Amino acid sequence: MFLYICFMEQTKSIYSPYLSVDCVVFGFDGELIRVLLIKRKQAGQEVFALPGDLLDLSESLDETAVRVLNDLTGLNNIYLEQFGTFGDVDRISNPIDIEWLSTIRERPEERVITTAYFSLIKIEDFELKPNSFAEQVLWQPIEQKKQLAFDHNKIANTAWSILQYKIRNEPIVAFNLLPKKFTLRQLQGLYESIVGSELDKRNFRKRIQGKKFVSPLEEFEEGVAHKPARYYSFDEEIYKREFEKGQWFLF
Amino acid sequence: MFLYICFMEQTKSIYSPYLSVDCVVFGFDGELIRVLLIKRKQAGQEVFALPGDLLDLSESLDETAVRVLNDLTGLNNIYLEQFGTFGDVDRISNPIDIEWLSTIRERPEERVITTAYFSLIKIEDFELKPNSFAEQVLWQPIEQKKQLAFDHNKIANTAWSILQYKIRNEPIVAFNLLPKKFTLRQLQGLYESIVGSELDKRNFRKRIQGKKFVSPLEEFEEGVAHKPARYYSFDEEIYKREFEKGQWFLF
Repeated sequence: MFLYICFMEQTKSIYSPYLSVDCVVFGFDGELIRVLLIKRKQAGQEVFALPGDLLDLSESLDETAVRVLNDLTGLNNIYLEQFGTFGDVDRISNPIDIEWLSTIRERPEERVITTAYFSLIKIEDFELKPNSFAEQVLWQPIEQKKQLAFDHNKIANTAWSILQYKIRNEPIVAFNLLPKKFTLRQLQGLYESIVGSELDKRNFRKRIQGKKFVSPLEEFEEGVAHKPARYYSFDEEIYKREFEKGQWFLF
Repeated sequence: MFLYICFMEQTKSIYSPYLSVDCVVFGFDGELIRVLLIKRKQAGQEVFALPGDLLDLSESLDETAVRVLNDLTGLNNIYLEQFGTFGDVDRISNPIDIEWLSTIRERPEERVITTAYFSLIKIEDFELKPNSFAEQVLWQPIEQKKQLAFDHNKIANTAWSILQYKIRNEPIVAFNLLPKKFTLRQLQGLYESIVGSELDKRNFRKRIQGKKFVSPLEEFEEGVAHKPARYYSFDEEIYKREFEKGQWFLF
């Protein structure tokens, strides 16, 4: 046993920290953007974390991401995009995290480098099912900050910035979150959720009305207490033609 | 010895492939974009690769990138940005690569996951100095394809796509490669090098002239055989005001 520990030490201390994958899944509930968290099974502590776990040597990183997310949350068939690898030497330093790791892993203080993936889905399209070491799975509104395990706040914040950048440069990402027919109120709500502040309604509508790929329909909301709003639709073909042409020379 | 191998196997087969860092450094020579390659010290074979090496357990990934690039090429003080981690199970399968690894590493067939960084610099600002296992360091024009070691072609191509995306969405990245005073021919040459094809001169100039952050100067080329071209300058403040305002609503 002594030899065993000894050699592990020697092998691992050269080049090989543990490797894990963490997933930042954003979901749109029709009003707000939320982030998917798990609550860990940890006696006497309420600890929330991104869904993540160690790589298996037989898997590619992409395969690990799919497996781990499904194992912990039940989510399946969603598009996951890698966005960064977090390799600070002191990622695992919080005693609560080490205590938890000691219940599931031989060397809980061992360094772990994690590759992170993100996704953006419509919440209503998927069902959650906590499993493995996840006691609970929840959609946390992103404006309600929560202290997360390890460096998961940093990872989630990085994913959020990247998502904002992406939506700014490829608005189609936002339109894909809306139903086929949507009101301008819904569209504005989505953008406000992404920007994180209220937008001026008049300005917003003026900008939209200048866009050929957002078309007014001859259909209106039904059975609402307020004045029924007009529905709009997003035309992906026009978008591609208008938005992507000449992208080289945005400046 | 038997025990030793045995235990290494056990430890490493669970969760810990080797970890490395590879750097894709693009350089602009005033006319072309090039990529920085090393030629490996390998008997009887001429093998080119991206500068990269294994992580040391005391380092963060960012620190590894800085050290490895400097060790192999002499480059220092350049901004490196992480862009992806490559974790396919069969990354190391080419016999030439395994043969080379067997001269520098105990378990040459061991799986390696690599985190990749990119950078974009002006070639004239830096001096190269091959070192460590690099026999030579060179700036390879990116349109001249070269077969690289491991999955380095895939890594370099990914970096190139990301760079193109970045320049498309943040033209300041391109302007930073030019001298303070530049001609429209230089600017067009840079963009052609990025797009990978010739651009229509009239159209290009028309677009530029509509941009407030590119200002014509009352200075002209001197001592040239052709008609001296006018110099232009890039105004970062106007750029930031014009280009970054309202980015939320590009659509």
